[in-house]
Amino acid sequence: MTNRAWHLKSRPQGLPTEDNFELKELPREDLPDGWVRVENRWLSVDPYMRGRMNDVKSYVPPFQVGAPLEGGAVGVVVESRSPDLAEGETVFHMLGWRETATGAAEKFNKLPPLGVEDHQWLGNLGLTGGTAYFGLLRAAQAKEGDIVFVSAAAGGVGSAVVQIAKAKGMTVIGSAGGAEKCAWVKELGADAVIDYKAEPLLAALQREAPKGIDVYFDNVGGDHLDAALATARQNARFAICGMIEGYNGAPPHAFRYIMRVIAARIMMKGFIYTDYLAEMGDFYRDMGGWIASGRVKGRETVREGIEATPDAFRDLFSGGNIGKMLVRL
Amino acid sequence: MTNRAWHLKSRPQGLPTEDNFELKELPREDLPDGWVRVENRWLSVDPYMRGRMNDVKSYVPPFQVGAPLEGGAVGVVVESRSPDLAEGETVFHMLGWRETATGAAEKFNKLPPLGVEDHQWLGNLGLTGGTAYFGLLRAAQAKEGDIVFVSAAAGGVGSAVVQIAKAKGMTVIGSAGGAEKCAWVKELGADAVIDYKAEPLLAALQREAPKGIDVYFDNVGGDHLDAALATARQNARFAICGMIEGYNGAPPHAFRYIMRVIAARIMMKGFIYTDYLAEMGDFYRDMGGWIASGRVKGRETVREGIEATPDAFRDLFSGGNIGKMLVRL
Repeated sequence: MTNRAWHLKSRPQGLPTEDNFELKELPREDLPDGWVRVENRWLSVDPYMRGRMNDVKSYVPPFQVGAPLEGGAVGVVVESRSPDLAEGETVFHMLGWRETATGAAEKFNKLPPLGVEDHQWLGNLGLTGGTAYFGLLRAAQAKEGDIVFVSAAAGGVGSAVVQIAKAKGMTVIGSAGGAEKCAWVKELGADAVIDYKAEPLLAALQREAPKGIDVYFDNVGGDHLDAALATARQNARFAICGMIEGYNGAPPHAFRYIMRVIAARIMMKGFIYTDYLAEMGDFYRDMGGWIASGRVKGRETVREGIEATPDAFRDLFSGGNIGKMLVRL
Repeated sequence: MTNRAWHLKSRPQGLPTEDNFELKELPREDLPDGWVRVENRWLSVDPYMRGRMNDVKSYVPPFQVGAPLEGGAVGVVVESRSPDLAEGETVFHMLGWRETATGAAEKFNKLPPLGVEDHQWLGNLGLTGGTAYFGLLRAAQAKEGDIVFVSAAAGGVGSAVVQIAKAKGMTVIGSAGGAEKCAWVKELGADAVIDYKAEPLLAALQREAPKGIDVYFDNVGGDHLDAALATARQNARFAICGMIEGYNGAPPHAFRYIMRVIAARIMMKGFIYTDYLAEMGDFYRDMGGWIASGRVKGRETVREGIEATPDAFRDLFSGGNIGKMLVRL
C-alpha cells in the first residue's frame, strides 16, 4: 500500500498549473492510541480549495507550501487503535488529496445508515448538497412560489439547487455553458435554461424571467451577479455561495447594476456550509428523503487515480465537470 | 403671492446642469372642496431625487419632463376648504420645488407637537433622520458594541447616523471630504474620522478599525463600499442607503473585494425610508427624545429663495453641504 499525497509545491498565480502541485510519498506513521488509518476510496475537489491556496486568512486557514493538501474524502478503516472505529468501516473525513489518511478517530465520521452510495457523502449528502440546501433555504430564505435563478446550474452545487428548488415548489432558471450541460439541467427539472456561452446572459435572463427573479443563488459572481442585480424583483434575496469567475485572479468586475440593491431592496448574504452545522438534522432528513424517492439525483464526473487529482481540480475552472467532480482511488 | 415652480425641462445626462430645470409660474387654481393651499417655507433637496430625473422605473415613479418637480417641503396653510386643516397651520408634505402647493388636505401632514424647529421635519425628524435611523437599526441591525463605518458622515443622513450610533453605544468611524467636515463629524461624537480627500481610504479605514467593522452604512458606493467589504468582520451587516458616486453616470465601479461577502458572511441590504413606515412611532419617540436632550443635533446648509433650488440640489453631488441641505423661501 503506497501512501502518496499531493503537496502544495508553490502558490498559484491565477489559474493553478501542474507545477503548483507535487505528489510525494508520506512516511508511514505508527498509530498512537486512539488513532486510525484509513485507505481513501473517493476524493472530492471543490472550487473553494482555490482560496486556501492563497496566503490569505479566510474562513479556513490557507494551505501551507510544502505540506499535504486537504479536502473531503471517503475511505475505509484499515487499521484502528480506537474503540470507536472498527476495521472495515467506511468513513467520511477531510484528509483528502492522499491515498492514506491517519489521525485521531474523532476526525473520521461513520457514514449514517441512509443506504446511499458512498460517494454521495461527497456530493448531494455532503458539502456540495448541504451548500445548496442551506444557501437556498436559509441564506436566501427561498420559499414555494419564488422565481429562482442559479448560475453554474450543471455543477455539483448548482444541480442540487435546481432539484431542491423544484422539490420545494419554486420556478427555476439555470445557467450553464454549452448544450450538453443545458440539456442536463433541463432534465433535472429546471423551467428554463440559459446557455451563457451561446447568447448574452442579461437579455436571456430578462426573456426567461419577464417578471424578474426573487432569489439568486450565486456560484459565479461577475456578469452573472450583475445580471441578477438587473433582474431582481422587490425584496429579492441573493445567496452568495461562490464567485468562481474571480478565484483565479481575473480583473475585478465593474458592476453596472449594483445600485439596484437599493431600488429593489435586495438582500445579499454570503455564507458557507458550516454556518448551518446546527441544522444538519433537517438537511439529512430532507435530502435523504429526496434521494431515496429519486427527487434528487446525483451525477458525477469521475477521474481515476490519485495522479488525476490536480487536473480534476483545475478542470473545475474551465467547466470540465457535469455534476460533482470526484476522483476515485 | 407668486406661484413659481421648478419644472424638469430635460432629463440630465450625468451631472444635472442649469439647463435641465426651468422656473415657471403655475396657473392659480381655485380650490375644490377638501383642498388646501400651502405657502412653502422650506424645501428639501435630496440625492435620491437624481434617480427620479431618469426615465427609469424605480421605487418612486420618474419625474415627467415638462411637469413640476416634487420633494419634501414645510409650509403654512394659507387657504383651506377642508375641515381637517385650518389656515395658519404648519404642515409637512411632498409638493416641494415650488412656492405654493395645492392639493387634497390628506396630502399634507400637521407637524406633531414635539417642540422642534419647523425645518427639522425635513432633517432629523424627516426623511433624512428616518433614513439614518431605520437603515442603521433595522436594515443593518446595528447594536451596542458594534464598530460602525459611515460614509458621507458630514451629510444630512450621515451626520444623523453618527449621532444615533453614539446614542446607542456603538463605536463610529466616519468619512468625509475636507478638514472642516471632518472636524464637525468629530464634534458630533465620532470616534474616528477619515478625510478621504487627504489620504487613501482603505489604508485609513484599516488603521482606524484594526479589528474590522461590524456595520457599514453606505451613502456613497464605489470605493467606499469596496473598502468596507475589505474591512468587514465576520457577520458584518451593510445598510445600502445610497450610492451617490454612481448617480450621475460615473463608470461602474470594479469591486476588488466583492468576494469577501462569502469569507466574512456579509449581509447587504438595500432599503428606503418608507419600508419602515409601520415603525414611525419608534422613530419619533427615540429621535424626538434625542433632539430634546441635545443628543442629536441638526446642522443645515441653507440656500435662500426659490431661485436657488437647482443649485442647492446640484451642490449635493460636489459636497457643497455640511449637514442637511435646505432652501428657505
